[in-house]
Amino acid sequence: MITNATTQDLEVGDVALMGVPLDLHSSFLQGPAFALNRIREALQSGAANLTAEDGTDLGATDRVKDTGDLDVFEQRGPEPIAAIEVGAGARIDKGARLLSLGGDHSVAYPLIKAHADRYQGLNVLHIDAHPDLYDQQDIGPLGHGCPFARVMETGKIKRLMQVGIRTMNAHQREQADRFGVEVVDMRNWRSDLTPSFDGPVYLSLDLDGLDPAFAPGVSHHEPGGLSTREVIDLIARFQGQVIGADIVELNPHRDPYGMTAMVAAKFVKEIGARLLR
Amino acid sequence: MITNATTQDLEVGDVALMGVPLDLHSSFLQGPAFALNRIREALQSGAANLTAEDGTDLGATDRVKDTGDLDVFEQRGPEPIAAIEVGAGARIDKGARLLSLGGDHSVAYPLIKAHADRYQGLNVLHIDAHPDLYDQQDIGPLGHGCPFARVMETGKIKRLMQVGIRTMNAHQREQADRFGVEVVDMRNWRSDLTPSFDGPVYLSLDLDGLDPAFAPGVSHHEPGGLSTREVIDLIARFQGQVIGADIVELNPHRDPYGMTAMVAAKFVKEIGARLLR
Amino acid sequence: MITNATTQDLEVGDVALMGVPLDLHSSFLQGPAFALNRIREALQSGAANLTAEDGTDLGATDRVKDTGDLDVFEQRGPEPIAAIEVGAGARIDKGARLLSLGGDHSVAYPLIKAHADRYQGLNVLHIDAHPDLYDQQDIGPLGHGCPFARVMETGKIKRLMQVGIRTMNAHQREQADRFGVEVVDMRNWRSDLTPSFDGPVYLSLDLDGLDPAFAPGVSHHEPGGLSTREVIDLIARFQGQVIGADIVELNPHRDPYGMTAMVAAKFVKEIGARLLR
Amino acid sequence: MITNATTQDLEVGDVALMGVPLDLHSSFLQGPAFALNRIREALQSGAANLTAEDGTDLGATDRVKDTGDLDVFEQRGPEPIAAIEVGAGARIDKGARLLSLGGDHSVAYPLIKAHADRYQGLNVLHIDAHPDLYDQQDIGPLGHGCPFARVMETGKIKRLMQVGIRTMNAHQREQADRFGVEVVDMRNWRSDLTPSFDGPVYLSLDLDGLDPAFAPGVSHHEPGGLSTREVIDLIARFQGQVIGADIVELNPHRDPYGMTAMVAAKFVKEIGARLLR
Amino acid sequence: MITNATTQDLEVGDVALMGVPLDLHSSFLQGPAFALNRIREALQSGAANLTAEDGTDLGATDRVKDTGDLDVFEQRGPEPIAAIEVGAGARIDKGARLLSLGGDHSVAYPLIKAHADRYQGLNVLHIDAHPDLYDQQDIGPLGHGCPFARVMETGKIKRLMQVGIRTMNAHQREQADRFGVEVVDMRNWRSDLTPSFDGPVYLSLDLDGLDPAFAPGVSHHEPGGLSTREVIDLIARFQGQVIGADIVELNPHRDPYGMTAMVAAKFVKEIGARLLR
Amino acid sequence: MITNATTQDLEVGDVALMGVPLDLHSSFLQGPAFALNRIREALQSGAANLTAEDGTDLGATDRVKDTGDLDVFEQRGPEPIAAIEVGAGARIDKGARLLSLGGDHSVAYPLIKAHADRYQGLNVLHIDAHPDLYDQQDIGPLGHGCPFARVMETGKIKRLMQVGIRTMNAHQREQADRFGVEVVDMRNWRSDLTPSFDGPVYLSLDLDGLDPAFAPGVSHHEPGGLSTREVIDLIARFQGQVIGADIVELNPHRDPYGMTAMVAAKFVKEIGARLLR
Repeated sequence: MITNATTQDLEVGDVALMGVPLDLHSSFLQGPAFALNRIREALQSGAANLTAEDGTDLGATDRVKDTGDLDVFEQRGPEPIAAIEVGAGARIDKGARLLSLGGDHSVAYPLIKAHADRYQGLNVLHIDAHPDLYDQQDIGPLGHGCPFARVMETGKIKRLMQVGIRTMNAHQREQADRFGVEVVDMRNWRSDLTPSFDGPVYLSLDLDGLDPAFAPGVSHHEPGGLSTREVIDLIARFQGQVIGADIVELNPHRDPYGMTAMVAAKFVKEIGARLLR
Repeated sequence: MITNATTQDLEVGDVALMGVPLDLHSSFLQGPAFALNRIREALQSGAANLTAEDGTDLGATDRVKDTGDLDVFEQRGPEPIAAIEVGAGARIDKGARLLSLGGDHSVAYPLIKAHADRYQGLNVLHIDAHPDLYDQQDIGPLGHGCPFARVMETGKIKRLMQVGIRTMNAHQREQADRFGVEVVDMRNWRSDLTPSFDGPVYLSLDLDGLDPAFAPGVSHHEPGGLSTREVIDLIARFQGQVIGADIVELNPHRDPYGMTAMVAAKFVKEIGARLLR
Repeated sequence: MITNATTQDLEVGDVALMGVPLDLHSSFLQGPAFALNRIREALQSGAANLTAEDGTDLGATDRVKDTGDLDVFEQRGPEPIAAIEVGAGARIDKGARLLSLGGDHSVAYPLIKAHADRYQGLNVLHIDAHPDLYDQQDIGPLGHGCPFARVMETGKIKRLMQVGIRTMNAHQREQADRFGVEVVDMRNWRSDLTPSFDGPVYLSLDLDGLDPAFAPGVSHHEPGGLSTREVIDLIARFQGQVIGADIVELNPHRDPYGMTAMVAAKFVKEIGARLLR
Repeated sequence: MITNATTQDLEVGDVALMGVPLDLHSSFLQGPAFALNRIREALQSGAANLTAEDGTDLGATDRVKDTGDLDVFEQRGPEPIAAIEVGAGARIDKGARLLSLGGDHSVAYPLIKAHADRYQGLNVLHIDAHPDLYDQQDIGPLGHGCPFARVMETGKIKRLMQVGIRTMNAHQREQADRFGVEVVDMRNWRSDLTPSFDGPVYLSLDLDGLDPAFAPGVSHHEPGGLSTREVIDLIARFQGQVIGADIVELNPHRDPYGMTAMVAAKFVKEIGARLLR
Repeated sequence: MITNATTQDLEVGDVALMGVPLDLHSSFLQGPAFALNRIREALQSGAANLTAEDGTDLGATDRVKDTGDLDVFEQRGPEPIAAIEVGAGARIDKGARLLSLGGDHSVAYPLIKAHADRYQGLNVLHIDAHPDLYDQQDIGPLGHGCPFARVMETGKIKRLMQVGIRTMNAHQREQADRFGVEVVDMRNWRSDLTPSFDGPVYLSLDLDGLDPAFAPGVSHHEPGGLSTREVIDLIARFQGQVIGADIVELNPHRDPYGMTAMVAAKFVKEIGARLLR
Repeated sequence: MITNATTQDLEVGDVALMGVPLDLHSSFLQGPAFALNRIREALQSGAANLTAEDGTDLGATDRVKDTGDLDVFEQRGPEPIAAIEVGAGARIDKGARLLSLGGDHSVAYPLIKAHADRYQGLNVLHIDAHPDLYDQQDIGPLGHGCPFARVMETGKIKRLMQVGIRTMNAHQREQADRFGVEVVDMRNWRSDLTPSFDGPVYLSLDLDGLDPAFAPGVSHHEPGGLSTREVIDLIARFQGQVIGADIVELNPHRDPYGMTAMVAAKFVKEIGARLLR
């Protein structure tokens, strides 16, 4: 069983699940707010067990702990982004490895920043339909199309590799070139791709990197993506020490039968197993 | 805000929410198991507030407490029904008024029994499409078509009034006559019906008492039922001291947009306001 | 139980269910073809019993017989309409009362004609959102917007009363006046309307007479209609000898949870009880 | 047929349809942006005609004109709210009566302001589940829970009557008292209510005033509301000269079969007929 | 056309379709009860023909016969499992090859036992997300997670090969080792796998072996599975004499557009073609 | 941005989008009539950009023009098929390359004929689950199962290659042989297939060529088809000069979340990029 825990309960080597109920751009928070809720439902549904495909049983260890939803509006400052960085940092500082669930992709910036400040030479493996490298959006520089521009501007990222990309436009291509991002467009994807990273790796998994056939429960359907199997195999196969991860953009409004929540739950198990290695 | 609490935290006069994740007859528990989960989502969604129509604000008092899901399989005896009776009794014994959420209607038997043992002269107001008075079902005498036969056999119920009924067959008509049940068939329903009870009243609300247009998220669609408005008004209007209640048969599998969960959440507010009176 | 039977098996006074898998205007027949199939599923689902609200148990008598789907394309003539008239006539000639299920409303013309030829002074009670009195449609004079013009042109109908109408335009108003149709527009509907007919009555029930909230599984959503309860009560209450009926326009493509099929099944029970009187 | 037109094409007495593709609070505009699109689909679907229930045929006159979607982001100022006021004013100044479609309810403030500046002694009939009288929301004073506070603060509204309300909390009750709003709570609603206004009337129709059974395609499900029939009848019955109207909060994301778009289209016909009187 | 037939009508070499409307663990049988019904709808829908991909036309031969739904509750003994074994055996004894449709996977035990008793050296090819090798479940030793443990305990199975597996836990790994099961985990699956069996082969196809993208209409979504194409090709390609088969776990409650029923119908054609070889 | 334009506005080398709202066989036109509408929604939704995967930005050029829906019933002759040929021809004669959207596949015959009359030695690449080579259907020789028989009978097609086929029956196999069609059955499909055509190529893309997992929003689900990625890659890779194309069979009734409309929009971008080469 995955036990509930506070940040204080965390110990070195634990995997800490954390919910990030944030969609910066909507007054009606239900989408991201309940992503973690639905993933928990899927994990506990009795329709699956907690064993990853490599045999690691997340339910058999006491090292996987659910630290609940972050209160992103706790400190009513100008931006909840800061609260995410603080919440992530507190868990990392206890020696835990963070697996953040929910929210739109704007949460990746504070999450990765919290790791980059603590892990030198951080690599990022980013699975997504979109490069999210915009310099600006109408909704400002923290929009969910911008986080990887912000991440690269920290100057603390050793390598950023993007997989599953299929919406690259001229501006983002320029940004990718400028930041030295390694982009594996879907048109060049081969299912035996085996990235190898030197040093710590953070995995940022936007569910819309999958084809909408496999993950219809996302806000932005971008056809022509990865299969669930391809992502599972990529997670299992790439070389490097995974020290943190997020799974974002689950939208329960488009997930009537909980199928995409179950996909997210599957990735919790597979990524959890890597974090425990 | 509705606060989380243990049974021990309860005080006299509190309204205690309790989840009953039980569907005796299914190996795949997701339906009833997550009913409370979905009702909580609806209550917290930001798409509604916590004020009942009479102005009672469930979020402004500290007397409404969520005691979580009962562990119905805790004591691995022959029947989880016993666990429900124990769990309900413990909360009542603290002086709290119980509002039980989720499960199929088989849970009404132990819930009402727990109240009848503690409140003399208990009346029951039962809103449902079905009389649930079968002597036996294929799945035994505790099936979800039988609870009110079991309840009446306790001999402790002063009056049982059933509203919304529209599936009465010959056997159940006999049972109703035998137990002296007051049945208000839908064909005789008038929206100004104002029942009046002498002494304590337990309210058992099966969501399929509503027409499926209003509550599609139930297992048994029985057309020709009550509107949500009619049930809200009945809850507000009937005479008597409400001392406990349940809301049952929410089936998330048929509730893709959470509309029926929102109906249940509305009833939590309206019934909660009566329990606080 | 409702037993399967051939036309030859029918006896005087039986109620004969008959499926009419016809949608004249679609190459893809699945919608109407499987309406009867889905209504049977609903009747047999275990989610309901076979007792009508007046206590008549359709399962306790052996007089209700399911004669299966008509093979409307058996005689490859210019129009399957003729096959319907023949099929209906054969059942009536055995002394049975016909309850026809499925198809679009174009089937009402041959069905009613078969009855009018055999029952002198036939009255028709027609529940629908639309008057279906067009003289012509693009798809010809047998289109599903025309049947009641064709019916009235036979000169054999004593009275035609239409209930639930809410799409009357100038042309159809003229037609109604010309044929002497008694139209009860929804804006003038009162739920205590009690029509009284002298002589035999045929009941033609288009499910879109109901508000789409109650019967979403129809091709033409026309908001502002009757509730299921209002139709059940009207069926139970109107005066006259019911000798035949149809339930049309169920569209399984818009009925993912079978809710509208369950509404149709409810009407099978309520109309069946009247046909047995 | 409803013809397409520019603002310049409008003549005195025309009914001008106008789309307002605005949801201030979402980066993903598809919901409100395409509301008008879906309502047009419904109006043109061939599944209905253009005749209102009083016999007015919107397709037989050339006075109903569709002026298309407003470009709310045309002037990139601090708030698109100003663009709505300008767009509405331009149409009113041509002598047309405006029927605005789409957007969240925040659009009502500039729409009503544009009318109040031009019609002295303006009355407002507001159909909604929510009073929308908040002084402030997290998202500021122009949030979709605030427009009627802003409207009343103009000091130019003679009477504001709210119908369908069922979420009144203490703060909003105070606001209603302060502004002298006439609130008809659902618990006090009677279907023969016949408001009578002296002078011009603006009708603001939030689709969530309907019960979610009738209008599931809205963002905020609030059970216990009006039926479509009750709203149609209210629109037809209340006394006063209707000079402008809006229909808001249609959310295509929750309207898979277009049923709620069809409800909106029905109201376009019924309100259109009143605007033509 | 596939003709209806009784067991007595079967001849040597026929392919006998048989429905197994059994879900041992649910009082509400609609799910499995109507699986065969929905597969028949799909086969007859006119949206497809009856020709398999190798050119075998199931409609052109008179050797494919539909023997209807088994009455699994006919003999009210302790377990309907026995009725399945008897029903299957009767068909096999006529020389027919059985293609069983519907039910949860618990039906595989009596189906395979009936074959193993009649075909010496039986091989089993099992396509599934789950190994179904549990020794016990809460619901007993005949639960739908246990059938292949029971099958192997008969000692009559020459080889059991499992394909598509992606939920193996420690207990089931032990069971697989103990019984000598050949497990092809999804992580080791290659789409050119070509199993070769010596002697008769029974094919047991759980639709959840497919990825939920391809077969969403199942009770247990387990992401990361086979594509429909991979299963079609595997069925066509593996070496051995197929003498019986089942297709299980179709759940119409999660199949609003009949897409998964169409997948099952496709497999009926492809497996039917192999059974006719 | 894609600009609106009339046929007269077209210039040599433009890509002309054209809607064909035709389903010859249905009185209720909403399915195909609004396909273009929904594809436009998808293109404009803000959930995607207009850059194809090869970097061509359809929004950055002024050569892509939307010429709106064809009025297929303008000339009330015996067949709207003629109107399509005329409409297509007019656009081709302006030197534009046509990208036709919507309708059932029967529209391919007049579309291809219009091209074959103007481009000598025309090749056709046809992606579909069905060969559509029937000599006749119940609904006549212009049914949506016949267009490629009609196309080949013109004698003007140099090569017809069909990809994705998985429903070939004996009659159609004969037709394919007779016309010399190159059929790549799904069972023989390899994802590195690279067709090469000499001379002009017309691309006819039936969305049901995709597996229903990727394109559920079609009338005829035929499992075992192509992935969206495979079709994107095929479009990008095959050799030849593309001079016209169609995307057909999108059915909004089975596309509640617009996922299949988004797939069609993706193909608009990818095919548009080829037409601009």
